[in-house]
Amino acid sequence: MQVTTYDLKKISEKLGLSLKDINKAFKKKILREGEYRDTRTLLFKKNFKHIEKGTVIFLNENLDIVRGYPKTYRALTLYPTIKKHFIDKVVIEEKLNGYNTRIVKIDNEIYALTRSGYICPFTTKKAKKLLNLEILDDYPNYMLCGEMIGLNNPYTPYYYEEVDKGYENLGFYIFDIKERETNKSLPIRDRIELCEKYNLPYVKPLAIVNKEKADIYIKEIIKELDKKGREGVVLKDPDMDVPPLKYTTHYTQCEDLKSAFTFFFDLGVDFIFSRIVREGFMSFEFRESIEERKQRAKDLGESILLPMIETIEKVARGERVSEDFELIFDSEEDLEEFLEFMRKMKMVIKIKNVKKINTDEGLKIKVLIGKIYNKTNDKIISYLNGTLWE
Amino acid sequence: MQVTTYDLKKISEKLGLSLKDINKAFKKKILREGEYRDTRTLLFKKNFKHIEKGTVIFLNENLDIVRGYPKTYRALTLYPTIKKHFIDKVVIEEKLNGYNTRIVKIDNEIYALTRSGYICPFTTKKAKKLLNLEILDDYPNYMLCGEMIGLNNPYTPYYYEEVDKGYENLGFYIFDIKERETNKSLPIRDRIELCEKYNLPYVKPLAIVNKEKADIYIKEIIKELDKKGREGVVLKDPDMDVPPLKYTTHYTQCEDLKSAFTFFFDLGVDFIFSRIVREGFMSFEFRESIEERKQRAKDLGESILLPMIETIEKVARGERVSEDFELIFDSEEDLEEFLEFMRKMKMVIKIKNVKKINTDEGLKIKVLIGKIYNKTNDKIISYLNGTLWE
Repeated sequence: MQVTTYDLKKISEKLGLSLKDINKAFKKKILREGEYRDTRTLLFKKNFKHIEKGTVIFLNENLDIVRGYPKTYRALTLYPTIKKHFIDKVVIEEKLNGYNTRIVKIDNEIYALTRSGYICPFTTKKAKKLLNLEILDDYPNYMLCGEMIGLNNPYTPYYYEEVDKGYENLGFYIFDIKERETNKSLPIRDRIELCEKYNLPYVKPLAIVNKEKADIYIKEIIKELDKKGREGVVLKDPDMDVPPLKYTTHYTQCEDLKSAFTFFFDLGVDFIFSRIVREGFMSFEFRESIEERKQRAKDLGESILLPMIETIEKVARGERVSEDFELIFDSEEDLEEFLEFMRKMKMVIKIKNVKKINTDEGLKIKVLIGKIYNKTNDKIISYLNGTLWE
Repeated sequence: MQVTTYDLKKISEKLGLSLKDINKAFKKKILREGEYRDTRTLLFKKNFKHIEKGTVIFLNENLDIVRGYPKTYRALTLYPTIKKHFIDKVVIEEKLNGYNTRIVKIDNEIYALTRSGYICPFTTKKAKKLLNLEILDDYPNYMLCGEMIGLNNPYTPYYYEEVDKGYENLGFYIFDIKERETNKSLPIRDRIELCEKYNLPYVKPLAIVNKEKADIYIKEIIKELDKKGREGVVLKDPDMDVPPLKYTTHYTQCEDLKSAFTFFFDLGVDFIFSRIVREGFMSFEFRESIEERKQRAKDLGESILLPMIETIEKVARGERVSEDFELIFDSEEDLEEFLEFMRKMKMVIKIKNVKKINTDEGLKIKVLIGKIYNKTNDKIISYLNGTLWE
């Protein structure tokens, strides 16, 4: 790899890393080259020193940096975790179940980055369409951090009523505005003010509470969100002076398990333990009766076992199981570019259906894409054929 | 470590390993020194080339070898696995839920080895008491391989009606007789004949069936064993010409999960996925109705969640959770020797109660020992105190 064609010294200064560290990051393949059309980037594949995974350096004159969105830690218990973590007030926001996106404008171009730091052509185009991004002309040093949600997305296809526009279920909600080179967040009030000013959709606080009793409020909110089949909450300091925390519903734990166990040999192992531990601590903290616990256990058991058996049955019938999602593109070129991107991401995909649709915004292409989980398919076939289990 | 005081060349010849391999095994800490009273041994901590984990070399004049008990692979599906694996007939034996033990006589001394290859003082003494071991005088090259079962054992304390003698629940059943230096098994008929001749308890075949239809028989047997709360079956070639296979009941999968999730931060992660996969394939192969699947899912969910919540509650109340077992010793010295052995095994244990009991075999000592799972205790405390989850 040619690492000499750009100014490593300047990069190192901008990132606050020594040249030795930069070279180490290259050598350990933590820092890798990337590209999107004519744009070349460097990308942190992992956390390294104080630099977040997903941090991107644009290899332009400026060497513009877009820092990775930091991991949001989880409260396993509401009490005393919130009380210990926060300063005084806690802003409760709903956590949306989509994919984390950073939108930036660099060299007069809009880019939408996935959490891992890839410039996603699908997301970039949708962001431009969904949002009025003038804000980035006035504040080119900001990144708009938000959740892309809705059934018609390639990463977390999950239906949301509020973003339904008939032929497409997709929307974007800003939950954080940060300085893209320092990763410093605006205070929540300032973020909301800016979003209002530029008419941008944002996640609205559900409540602002005192940290001492926050657990009691949040418990009730979580119960409500659970009933409505929503993901959970993110808890924030009003000034963003301490990192946010997340907490999710029973419903989400079950949904996670259902998706993971549909492709259990690919996703099961990594997903299961953490979901179960969350359920255990929640049931304990919510002081559930034995009947409530049994109901929770039943939901858990069914979320794991039923999708697994269904998948085994499908494979036994000769099907190959895939995770399907339907995307809407403006043109064949857009579709092609996205498929090329998926292949570069090493996803094994299969086009299952393509159709032209008429919308109020003109003719579009609706494509059903299947993401293939090879390990699940192959291993099930092998065990059904008599391979022994260790 | 002094590895020059015994004849490595002879060991290498006896094991069929090159001297270079032996040295590599030492260097990689696969081959380690061990001792039991005045007996010094070498022990394979892992499978290495064709030598099984748990293989022990006695450092006497002969350099007697006791090969490790080979891993028994699992059938995830009965059909077509059995049909593919076996030659013609299949002997179905019940699988007992205790711990694998090899009994040998070397230099006129009886030794009982655990699966990992440790000479266990508890097991050695109980073996001598429970069994008439004349057979090893006549066949010093054999090892008696069997399951030590019952509530009063330190490894897999699990009640078995058939080994109850009032003050102690413990017994030993031979399921295999092997040449200890070659690991060659006797044909099942010869093993049974020898056991009968020497009046030794052995696992009796439940049935001998043709491999073509074995799955149908075994399904019925498994359903019966499941109802009775028994572990499962081991399937064998009558002449032991192919390795045995195992298959376990739904009951066992649930019991495994219950124990593992009582100490979930220590055992949960490793246990859960495999148990769930077994359940998935079983439910599929048994062509269960949706109601049966839901019942299975409920059992699974409860086996995971309920013990976990109970443990969290206990720790929250200030208890330290431990896995308790009650053992019966003949003397204080025996107890001391065993405790020393457990400490050497790096188990964290706590004596919870000691009492003298009168038995028809005289005065004995009944000791309640708790095995402490530090990770589970410490992590729960930490999360209850507000530590964030990754």
